[in-house]
Amino acid sequence: MTKRKISPAFKLWFQIGEDYVFGEGAYELLEQIRKKKSISAAAKASRMSYRYAWAHIKEIEKHLGESIVKTQKGGKQGGKTEITKEGLSLLTRYKRLKELMTKVCEEETSQK
Amino acid sequence: MTKRKISPAFKLWFQIGEDYVFGEGAYELLEQIRKKKSISAAAKASRMSYRYAWAHIKEIEKHLGESIVKTQKGGKQGGKTEITKEGLSLLTRYKRLKELMTKVCEEETSQK
Repeated sequence: MTKRKISPAFKLWFQIGEDYVFGEGAYELLEQIRKKKSISAAAKASRMSYRYAWAHIKEIEKHLGESIVKTQKGGKQGGKTEITKEGLSLLTRYKRLKELMTKVCEEETSQK
Repeated sequence: MTKRKISPAFKLWFQIGEDYVFGEGAYELLEQIRKKKSISAAAKASRMSYRYAWAHIKEIEKHLGESIVKTQKGGKQGGKTEITKEGLSLLTRYKRLKELMTKVCEEETSQK
């Protein structure tokens, strides 16, 4: 019988105490907000409803006690949304950790 | 406001293709079988029912196409269960990867 290829996989998230705060979905959403400067465009790209995306952001901000996005109201396009310094910090940490962990998995797999 | 401490956390598992095969629960169970040489004692230590533990092992073996435990029947104690070479290989891989990932998280956190 051919040996079946067993690969490692993982899920990464941030928590405060035991509370889940920020995971893959939030990472993708925030990365899209950073690029598109719009929550509705970011939600669409992340295949979330606007309502869900907004509620998810508010939930994260409640846990953190800080804002991760800031919206400037007005203008023809209905305002512009940018991620805050704290939002960018979370985004960067998540991305870096995910890359390091992916590398650990790939190195381990290549030794098999 | 005091800055809340944000810590990374992760879940690790093995998969074949897209199929989940072996995760934290299986790791704990197999580690206990290795130590106690008994599925019922291992299930108890892992806070699983014997029935659940046994079904979990069979499910993993079905995915792998190999046995991860072997049971010798008979004797006053109702036989002895040991993990196979393949079971030990999975156990060792999981443990090593988990340690490496934990280290990545700890190093990242200590820089904050």
